[in-house]
Amino acid sequence: MSSTVGKVIRCKAAVAWEAGKPLVIEEVEVAPPQAMEVRVKIVVTALCHTDVYFWEAKGQTPVFPRIFGHEAAGIVESVGEGVTELKPGDHVLPVFTGECKECRHCKSEESNMCDLLRINTDRGVMLNDGKSRFSINGKPIYHFVGTSTFSEYSVIHVGCLAKINPAAPMDKVCILSCGVSTGLGATLNVAKPPKGSTVAIFGLGAVGLSAAEGARIAGASRIIGIDLNPKRFDEAKKFGVTEFVNPKDHHKPVQEVLAEMTDGGVDRSIECTGSVNAMISAFECVHDGWGVAVLVGVPNKDDAFKTHPMNFLNEKTLKGTFFGNYKPRTDLPNVVEMYMRKELELEKFITHEVCLSEINKAFDYMLKGESLRCIIRMDG
Amino acid sequence: MSSTVGKVIRCKAAVAWEAGKPLVIEEVEVAPPQAMEVRVKIVVTALCHTDVYFWEAKGQTPVFPRIFGHEAAGIVESVGEGVTELKPGDHVLPVFTGECKECRHCKSEESNMCDLLRINTDRGVMLNDGKSRFSINGKPIYHFVGTSTFSEYSVIHVGCLAKINPAAPMDKVCILSCGVSTGLGATLNVAKPPKGSTVAIFGLGAVGLSAAEGARIAGASRIIGIDLNPKRFDEAKKFGVTEFVNPKDHHKPVQEVLAEMTDGGVDRSIECTGSVNAMISAFECVHDGWGVAVLVGVPNKDDAFKTHPMNFLNEKTLKGTFFGNYKPRTDLPNVVEMYMRKELELEKFITHEVCLSEINKAFDYMLKGESLRCIIRMDG
Ligand SMILES: NC(=O)c1ccc[n+]([C@@H]2O[C@H](COP(=O)([O-])OP(=O)(O)OC[C@H]3O[C@@H](n4cnc5c(N)ncnc54)[C@H](O)[C@@H]3O)[C@@H](O)[C@H]2O)c1
Ligand SMILES: NC(=O)c1ccc[n+]([C@@H]2O[C@H](COP(=O)([O-])OP(=O)(O)OC[C@H]3O[C@@H](n4cnc5c(N)ncnc54)[C@H](O)[C@@H]3O)[C@@H](O)[C@H]2O)c1
Ligand SMILES: [Zn+2]
Ligand SMILES: [Zn+2]
Ligand SMILES: [Zn+2]
Ligand SMILES: [Zn+2]
Repeated sequence: MSSTVGKVIRCKAAVAWEAGKPLVIEEVEVAPPQAMEVRVKIVVTALCHTDVYFWEAKGQTPVFPRIFGHEAAGIVESVGEGVTELKPGDHVLPVFTGECKECRHCKSEESNMCDLLRINTDRGVMLNDGKSRFSINGKPIYHFVGTSTFSEYSVIHVGCLAKINPAAPMDKVCILSCGVSTGLGATLNVAKPPKGSTVAIFGLGAVGLSAAEGARIAGASRIIGIDLNPKRFDEAKKFGVTEFVNPKDHHKPVQEVLAEMTDGGVDRSIECTGSVNAMISAFECVHDGWGVAVLVGVPNKDDAFKTHPMNFLNEKTLKGTFFGNYKPRTDLPNVVEMYMRKELELEKFITHEVCLSEINKAFDYMLKGESLRCIIRMDG
Repeated sequence: MSSTVGKVIRCKAAVAWEAGKPLVIEEVEVAPPQAMEVRVKIVVTALCHTDVYFWEAKGQTPVFPRIFGHEAAGIVESVGEGVTELKPGDHVLPVFTGECKECRHCKSEESNMCDLLRINTDRGVMLNDGKSRFSINGKPIYHFVGTSTFSEYSVIHVGCLAKINPAAPMDKVCILSCGVSTGLGATLNVAKPPKGSTVAIFGLGAVGLSAAEGARIAGASRIIGIDLNPKRFDEAKKFGVTEFVNPKDHHKPVQEVLAEMTDGGVDRSIECTGSVNAMISAFECVHDGWGVAVLVGVPNKDDAFKTHPMNFLNEKTLKGTFFGNYKPRTDLPNVVEMYMRKELELEKFITHEVCLSEINKAFDYMLKGESLRCIIRMDG
């Protein structure tokens, strides 16, 4: 392994040359890690909606050519100057948002929104020198959210790497890098449903089903799934969702339907759709006096959340979460342990599997709404 | 004392015959208490905005003739059937909202919004028989929020009476019946500012200054008062408010002014104005990652709270409170003890004092914005 330390590595990566065009497997050069950086051999990666969203580049500043990918697991190949917490051979999960351990957010017990390493979707370069570590024939290929895991090797800031149990199967725990932890943490860290409570989950994609998994783990007695797409209901049964509501089946607002089903409102609701209407319904459907609603979905730029302020005075609480309120380095290793102790089930999220050369298939599955998570093996 | 038990009592009361017209001191008949009711000799009462609002009766269904008043302290004269927790001679605070101890809300640790005895501003009669206990020459005079303390004697549901330490001075602790507990509880029970934190208070009336008193007790290091009326600032200094912002002095939204003063936002904010714009500012001015905003002010019927949902995803929390989340019977006796231990200061809220015959002066002080609290002695 030491033969590559300090040298450029040539390896395969799936490069997005243009918005919305199929990725192309290319040989790229990966420069050695600089100060506070780590070069990681990616073992397995998964595809998340956020990759697809920025690859389609509708509405944002396009940054191309670029290497996408942010849900993954890998092994440290070498470390740059100043990196003391990781060494070659360590198993890690790259995370799209980091933890510097120095800023006000990292020092606060409540926040995971690190000032230095908070997600930045516009930046395609490393913080240390403002340059990319990827190139083809000397021309830069840009990074994505500091992770770029659709490459056999990637250079990542040490603050964006969680060191995990080396016994954990990477082809399962890789999905804890983003969506699953987001939904799980929204329930366990933010909504905190008491045992025996009723929880509504808006949106039954991977994030919503992870929120449902959190409700199952917390001991909720009723988990009500709400989705506009009834195809999602069958799969959701595996996740402990016990009742289903399709807003399209009702003339009245879904919050009223839920209030009738639950004698006044649910105890907790978790919105995992990105639709501002679902956000409003998720808030208004919680019970007066003690209900808590948590927003997870990423809204559109011009959306407005709108409700009558009396709903707040009636003692409903509204919160939101970023990455399930998990601090990547401090908390993710413990989530991996939850899986190792069999408290958390991950297998049911993984519906498809391809190798790197077939990565465009993973995009197809997601665009067609067929997959929850498709994992991509780098050695395939 | 036993001479009046079971009999009608004739006594003085300030009767509102018509919306917005001066109250008239009349001799009224007060019937004996029925099942679960208590007849209380009111010793001292205070005037709150809510009395004035329903006396003006702009926009609501007018219920007249009516006896207003809901901030008070008194002594139990006699009890009706089924009342076991109170006996003649006990000192009590009447509260506009009750605690039946039986419903889901009363049984929940989080809620104080009792299903049976929650505030009802339209009802002018007692629950037991749907009738009033007050009359003049056999014609009913209606109740107000179950308390009607502008009378020497009033009949009140046992669930709306907090039994307090008989050593507590009634002419001080009477103001804990409504506004002061509301603001204090908004801070201590809901916002819960950590020691050393920065707290913004929107609106420096009696409720906002009570919220500031809560922040002082919690050990906040900066208390920033926001009001459109700069006359409020001088008085607020007595309440530990250390900095002042008048939104009218700035071209940019006040949430931006506060963010600049506090390196990104305050730790907690408490809105005590009733203005929906202040509610939005109070929410948006809290810090990403950990900020909590609490709404206390009662909005207009058609107001809409509107914000970008990204503010929630950035981990700001929005809550509201009703009566500071205090359960009237369970919690108010402890608030009285806080005053007895000199942790809570009440004297500074009491700016004026009149006797019952001068009650219309109390209305004038409040309408002119001169008083924080004017207490009204019944024996005057
Ligand atoms: N906050 C975070 O840290 C974070 C992290 C990852 C993903 N997310 C966000 O979480 C959301 C869900 O992600 P996902 O991967 O599960 O997406 P997904 O598209 O697979 O699932 C969303 C589901 O919501 C349903 N839906 C849409 N509008 C609805 C409505 N009005 N009512 C009911 N159901 C509705 C859709 O039919 C779909 O099944 C996205 O907005 C994503 O951007 C947030
Ligand atoms: N939630 C409850 O249980 C409860 C109980 C009692 C009172 N209240 C409500 O609390 C609010 C305050 O009561 P109060 O008795 O202190 O009232 P108040 O009128 O004495 O004080 C309100 C203050 O807010 C200021 N204000 C108004 N609009 C503002 C704005 N946009 N920005 C900044 N300041 C603004 C006013 O100048 C005034 O000084 C009222 O809405 C009242 O109905 C709620
Ligand atoms: Zn940090
Ligand atoms: Zn993701
Ligand atoms: Zn009750
Ligand atoms: Zn009041």
